Amino acid sequence: MKLSRILRDGPDGDQPRMVAVISDDEVVIDLRTAERRRLERQGASTDAAGRLATALFPGSLTAALGAGEVLKDHVTLAIEERDEAALVPFSEVNWAAAVDPPVMLDASAFEQHLVNAHARGKRTVPDLFYELPVYYKMNPVTVLGHEDTVPWPGGAKYMDYELEIAVVIGRTGRDLRPEEALAHVLGVTVMNDFSARDVQAREMTAGFGPAKGKDFGTVLGPWVTTLDELDLGDLTMLARVNGEEWSRGSTSTLTWSLEELVAYASRNEIVVPGQVIGSGTVGLGCGLELYRKLSPGDEVELEIEGIGTLRNRLAEPTETRWEPEAKERKAEVTLPSREEASSKTGNRKD
Amino acid sequence: MKLSRILRDGPDGDQPRMVAVISDDEVVIDLRTAERRRLERQGASTDAAGRLATALFPGSLTAALGAGEVLKDHVTLAIEERDEAALVPFSEVNWAAAVDPPVMLDASAFEQHLVNAHARGKRTVPDLFYELPVYYKMNPVTVLGHEDTVPWPGGAKYMDYELEIAVVIGRTGRDLRPEEALAHVLGVTVMNDFSARDVQAREMTAGFGPAKGKDFGTVLGPWVTTLDELDLGDLTMLARVNGEEWSRGSTSTLTWSLEELVAYASRNEIVVPGQVIGSGTVGLGCGLELYRKLSPGDEVELEIEGIGTLRNRLAEPTETRWEPEAKERKAEVTLPSREEASSKTGNRKD
Repeated sequence: MKLSRILRDGPDGDQPRMVAVISDDEVVIDLRTAERRRLERQGASTDAAGRLATALFPGSLTAALGAGEVLKDHVTLAIEERDEAALVPFSEVNWAAAVDPPVMLDASAFEQHLVNAHARGKRTVPDLFYELPVYYKMNPVTVLGHEDTVPWPGGAKYMDYELEIAVVIGRTGRDLRPEEALAHVLGVTVMNDFSARDVQAREMTAGFGPAKGKDFGTVLGPWVTTLDELDLGDLTMLARVNGEEWSRGSTSTLTWSLEELVAYASRNEIVVPGQVIGSGTVGLGCGLELYRKLSPGDEVELEIEGIGTLRNRLAEPTETRWEPEAKERKAEVTLPSREEASSKTGNRKD
Repeated sequence: MKLSRILRDGPDGDQPRMVAVISDDEVVIDLRTAERRRLERQGASTDAAGRLATALFPGSLTAALGAGEVLKDHVTLAIEERDEAALVPFSEVNWAAAVDPPVMLDASAFEQHLVNAHARGKRTVPDLFYELPVYYKMNPVTVLGHEDTVPWPGGAKYMDYELEIAVVIGRTGRDLRPEEALAHVLGVTVMNDFSARDVQAREMTAGFGPAKGKDFGTVLGPWVTTLDELDLGDLTMLARVNGEEWSRGSTSTLTWSLEELVAYASRNEIVVPGQVIGSGTVGLGCGLELYRKLSPGDEVELEIEGIGTLRNRLAEPTETRWEPEAKERKAEVTLPSREEASSKTGNRKD
């Protein structure tokens, strides 16, 4: 099945609604509507049917996934029944981000991108990328959906896209092994990790990972395709800018498998329903690797075979409202002497 | 006012409840209970009073903060009325994390800590820390509360605490200037950013910021003190391990103000209710700066004047269930030639 979220207008304004997507027919099923009407047909009052349907299909995919198999069973029913009154054609859909992740990570599982990106900076890839499936943490609050306009962050000069496949967690797990990981995965979606390269290059000098260079807007969608519909082994990945193909890659070039990414994400902590784990950019899957950059108003389309096409337009540049004033270096080192330290309990033994 | 969350047993197991804290009297007010009873006294049915009280005081502080001034007004009423039936003495309280943040950042606003920590690694502090109030993103899912036992992550050898003050956002804001920031802040709390130093040192070599070295458990509490109760200018900060004072500092040594941290966090994105922004460690506010490390079972107390004391015990070490197998270096650089690149649209102009 394919799951996503759309916005529908109502008496209280735009409301996010969970949908099942029938991509071949270019329609979505509003799952809350379908469930309410199904319950009514079974004799439930409109009020009770509405309450139950809303509990099962809230606007948040993350909240809905908490129901586990119960949720999937009811989505399956809605797809089988395909109630006309619950259908919305793509042409009338206002897409929301397919997922509203409570946590969003981005790994770096395609070696080719790492090698190229580091070569651009005249650096070699640190050993750690080969030793562990490392990731940085993204901002889950600024997630955008298919056909949303992506802001051009204030002060940025060099805008870029990143072509990625992203795993969506379906069930909580801790300290998983790779062979246990897929049982905790709902499916995969397309991720465009839009990046402000000049901002990112500067902030990486602190060693704290990407922040303002990435966190202005990351796109997830157009929907999540569940694993039973896909063989993840060799999916073609494409990026087009204003209709011209810029990037072409394949999931077959993953250095770390999606299973390994999920297992490592769960190490000493938990992965949770709705959590997103990006693969990192596929080789040659961004402008940085092509000596190319995006311009205001550019339309970027990312397509992954068997999932779908994610389309977004980049907004016009904006200005920042405040520039921090640099601080002076003042503090001297105040570490104790080793003798002083070793006279105390809890002192280092190495 | 002082706000926190506690766990109370019920027919469906432990349930998080929002509380107002009367620290002088060592009691908390269960806000949902207080509100329900207040509404009942005004003639509401038990059922309706329960619904309204639950809507105003859900288990999530983040969700509750969405109500803005309405929430504060009702907390004030509960504190004024101090209904005996809603009181729980500290001795019976099972504390939850004071906040359930949707996003959690940790800045590095105390220069002294940066200088010392970099000296331990025989490095100087990168310029960027003086140019921008940089931060890394933490894991909001593994937040712990006062008196929780903190896990010792699998494989870690060198465990440490970090003494920090943390801002809690009360109201959504975007692209704020420092002088506008405090209007978006609910209050401050104590943060113990427990760290596995050996894990962290290794993962920092990728440049993606801290992850497994920090994300196993961060403690927030014992409560959030609102800004009207505090002068943030010179609050003493203390750390004790098994009753012995290890660290002593003050908010007066902040290089970047809390206002600047909030303003920068809101740059090109939003800060949201319940979001936490840690200050970073105060100078000499961790074992790394003292050549000391924590042992299994150690009790760590962090105290900030005017806020409170956050106490936690460190668990016994654990093992990891899976170790990634290192990958081989394979990929060659595949960047196009500059000539090839410049023949296309969207090519770099610099």
